[in-house]
Amino acid sequence: MNKKINEIVLAIDIGGTLTKLGLVNKNGEIQSSRLFKTGAKKPFSEFKNTLETEIHQLLSTLNSTHTIRAIGVGAPNANYKTGEMINPPNFKWGRLVPIKKTIRQLLDRPIQMTNDANAAALGELYFGAGKHMKNFVVLTLGTGLGSGIINEGKLIFGQYGMAGELGHVNVFSEGRQCNCGLKGCLETYASVTGIKRTVFELLASSNRDSILRNYSFEDLTGKDISEAAHKGDFVALEAFEQTAKILGSKMADTVAHLEPEAFILTGGLSQAGSLFLKPLKKSMEEALFNAYKGKIKILLSKSSSSEAILGPAALAWEGLIQN
Amino acid sequence: MNKKINEIVLAIDIGGTLTKLGLVNKNGEIQSSRLFKTGAKKPFSEFKNTLETEIHQLLSTLNSTHTIRAIGVGAPNANYKTGEMINPPNFKWGRLVPIKKTIRQLLDRPIQMTNDANAAALGELYFGAGKHMKNFVVLTLGTGLGSGIINEGKLIFGQYGMAGELGHVNVFSEGRQCNCGLKGCLETYASVTGIKRTVFELLASSNRDSILRNYSFEDLTGKDISEAAHKGDFVALEAFEQTAKILGSKMADTVAHLEPEAFILTGGLSQAGSLFLKPLKKSMEEALFNAYKGKIKILLSKSSSSEAILGPAALAWEGLIQN
Repeated sequence: MNKKINEIVLAIDIGGTLTKLGLVNKNGEIQSSRLFKTGAKKPFSEFKNTLETEIHQLLSTLNSTHTIRAIGVGAPNANYKTGEMINPPNFKWGRLVPIKKTIRQLLDRPIQMTNDANAAALGELYFGAGKHMKNFVVLTLGTGLGSGIINEGKLIFGQYGMAGELGHVNVFSEGRQCNCGLKGCLETYASVTGIKRTVFELLASSNRDSILRNYSFEDLTGKDISEAAHKGDFVALEAFEQTAKILGSKMADTVAHLEPEAFILTGGLSQAGSLFLKPLKKSMEEALFNAYKGKIKILLSKSSSSEAILGPAALAWEGLIQN
Repeated sequence: MNKKINEIVLAIDIGGTLTKLGLVNKNGEIQSSRLFKTGAKKPFSEFKNTLETEIHQLLSTLNSTHTIRAIGVGAPNANYKTGEMINPPNFKWGRLVPIKKTIRQLLDRPIQMTNDANAAALGELYFGAGKHMKNFVVLTLGTGLGSGIINEGKLIFGQYGMAGELGHVNVFSEGRQCNCGLKGCLETYASVTGIKRTVFELLASSNRDSILRNYSFEDLTGKDISEAAHKGDFVALEAFEQTAKILGSKMADTVAHLEPEAFILTGGLSQAGSLFLKPLKKSMEEALFNAYKGKIKILLSKSSSSEAILGPAALAWEGLIQN
């Protein structure tokens, strides 16, 4: 009797709030998944214990036809080459967090790790909007701005494994204070947090009525701004315009480096639809060097946040091809 | 009797003023070379005729031990994928100049073409300062600012063959008028022409004595500015400071994309020595994202302008490996 073997990988997405894990096959089909609170402010040993329990729970769903081939991990500030999270902001796990080593002790399989945005780019390449492309840039427009760059079908890692930090290209030399210590970084403008800052700047500089005058900075969400804009709120609309103008011009600079076929946008800010995409496209086109005009697409990712493990899954499969 | 075979490539560097051609072996040794006036303002057919004569002259230096394996061409605005020069400024050869096709008619060998800065990057990779590196960016700081990006030992070509136009990243959104039609492009600041513009701005805004008040814009050269700076001329020194500040901060943005091991500088502006390199390094370091600080080298190219054919030669050898 022939027994069909189901080859799968273990994919782990470590987020500041939630950690997701799942078993994913070569077609990007999620066989089973779990999630738990990361506990970024608690000791790393607690995370390790919970992760161990969760992995065991997940593996108990397997039957004898399954084979786990590899592990892929996405995490903030992860270094591909060292397998550590390097000084992750919002985590109290120390300056160098040995993720790869820790997971390998729990399950001995080939393991690859990279930052969440790089993993997202691989997810798009293998299973998403980038499936039929070889050159594209993924921008994750969430709390911050992350990026992953695919060139000739491969992720660009850079010399020390930390390439693709487009959230920290400079917009204004004496601009907004960034968490990283620099001033005027792109993510202080073009992210959910960035557009919130722009809203508060506009609430201060203009005297227009706005629904957004009823929100504290802590309470205001990207969705609130988006809903206000759809209702025609001036401040919200203007905030999207200004954000699109800045991001579009910086995307043109990225094109001057890499000439991608497309940008693929994901994260909260990308969900505002055409009121963001239209001025974004316009601003990018205006700033593009002649040779690039009219050639670069701006696409939206199709995967939802529950599919965040697809990035790490793609990384695991990619690792098997490489090695 | 054994006859040793000398494998060589034909390398052609088409410049706005001079075209250089030569025969180069795998070690980057130039066996023989020639040069002639390009005649960029004359009809393309004249260039073709002269090139044919020059190639024949060059080949007449060969003996029976030589085998020409391939041809490499570097030219302004050259597209790697189509083999054409696309709308080259300062050339009156038409909008699409079929260089690859033309040369193939003169000598039937595998032929590769790319723009001069991309070719320079390959030259550094095969024979120059980048010989032991896999990730670096070459900046040619001449009349304009050209660039070539090496990632994992390969040139980044982009989706349509036109990646690496760092001369056209934006510095100021309403900045200096660029030849390309945009405003505030990096090459309007960080190139020999760029620093001349800065000198003239400073001569207008300050009332300090300066040797440079004796030059017309047309007559002023990069060397004049460099010599004035070495003599302590305030305007010249300040011009280098301002140029370095702008270029350094944009190099930090390039690092956020690619995390190269090094930048390799070439062209007139790079020859000013430490009075340019010191503030350049300082400005780049200040603008670098944490993860990159203290890691990125700034090196000078060792090859002279008479060795400009080494880039196209490397391209030809590279083509043989690829295909």
